[in-house]
Amino acid sequence: MKQVAVVLSGCGFLDGAEITEAISTLIAIGQNGAEYKVFAPNKDVPETNHLTQKPTGQQRNVMQEAARIARGDIQALENLNAQDFDALAFPGGFGAALHLCDFAEKGSSGKIDPQVTRVVKEFHESRKPIAAICIAPAIMALAFGNKGVSVTIGDDAGTVTEIEKTGAKHQNCAVEKFVVDADKKIITTPAYMYGTAKPHQIFEGVSGAITELLKMA
Amino acid sequence: MKQVAVVLSGCGFLDGAEITEAISTLIAIGQNGAEYKVFAPNKDVPETNHLTQKPTGQQRNVMQEAARIARGDIQALENLNAQDFDALAFPGGFGAALHLCDFAEKGSSGKIDPQVTRVVKEFHESRKPIAAICIAPAIMALAFGNKGVSVTIGDDAGTVTEIEKTGAKHQNCAVEKFVVDADKKIITTPAYMYGTAKPHQIFEGVSGAITELLKMA
Repeated sequence: MKQVAVVLSGCGFLDGAEITEAISTLIAIGQNGAEYKVFAPNKDVPETNHLTQKPTGQQRNVMQEAARIARGDIQALENLNAQDFDALAFPGGFGAALHLCDFAEKGSSGKIDPQVTRVVKEFHESRKPIAAICIAPAIMALAFGNKGVSVTIGDDAGTVTEIEKTGAKHQNCAVEKFVVDADKKIITTPAYMYGTAKPHQIFEGVSGAITELLKMA
Repeated sequence: MKQVAVVLSGCGFLDGAEITEAISTLIAIGQNGAEYKVFAPNKDVPETNHLTQKPTGQQRNVMQEAARIARGDIQALENLNAQDFDALAFPGGFGAALHLCDFAEKGSSGKIDPQVTRVVKEFHESRKPIAAICIAPAIMALAFGNKGVSVTIGDDAGTVTEIEKTGAKHQNCAVEKFVVDADKKIITTPAYMYGTAKPHQIFEGVSGAITELLKMA
């Protein structure tokens, strides 16, 4: 049975992983007859109140919060080795652009978290496919922009400009669809980059991307 | 377009709503061509660390945490009126048995939260259907046990005993299936009462229950 490593960045779109994208990923993996393990960085980050959309001044631990999505079955990102898996998936949410890289603050001049860099490199060098959802394709652009990777983050002009500054090629894409870079084995889908999309549309796009991921694996 | 009110009890199965069940509910509502609004009690409750499964000694606000699942689009339970909706759904998680009623502590002698009681009564008296997932059928047993309502919480013997003490009839049920009380318009599905189930199995059971809910609405 194929094994997918899923990397989460917390629990909640403003300071962590987008929850519908994360759950859609886990459902789609099972529907495709595969299994998964969940990983997250073990670090404290600023908390955002999801009612007021404002910082609370408190901190939360990324792995401890992501454990809510994973029902406690989660490991620190340091423990993720590509040799144990067939494919890698990054759900989105601001957490992906805040805690897995700093694209949210620095755009095209951002850097990827060292452990995320290691993991992405391991999967890429062993020719194992990677799916990135919502804003997580920014990680792919920061990692592979210099190789001209093709990605989508939907159609948001400002974000597209920053993505293209990395050298990545951007393709506009509807929420239910996904973009494949067959050469680099990278699949991207915009999900809640369309902020008014509905959960079943998110599921359709993510499900398509994960099905393609597992075909490539 | 049919409208479903979804009542959440937090964000995370140990101290709130079970996240896969909540998201499966929202996806299934859209897949059936309906829309939803999300509600939660606006109250503070004890927080559980989802890595250690132990209380942290801190409190979290049920509505503020459920806003993570609802992407901020959520209202206090006081604002839910049955006249605005065609159907009602309760995802599970311990939150449903801790914050929507106190079945987790008191079993068959438990009481339902007064606002939940009002909401369930309004939907029931206007003959609008109600879906309850995982442990949330305990709310239905506490509300309608004296009328012999038929429900399922899977096959956990201890929980079945408490459910039946209310006068409710219990039917064993697999995770992918659901139980219908056609007379009382109540649909129940066990979901993560099977703790080792996979997200795609949860989705199958919840999706079936929500499809039936909308057929009845």
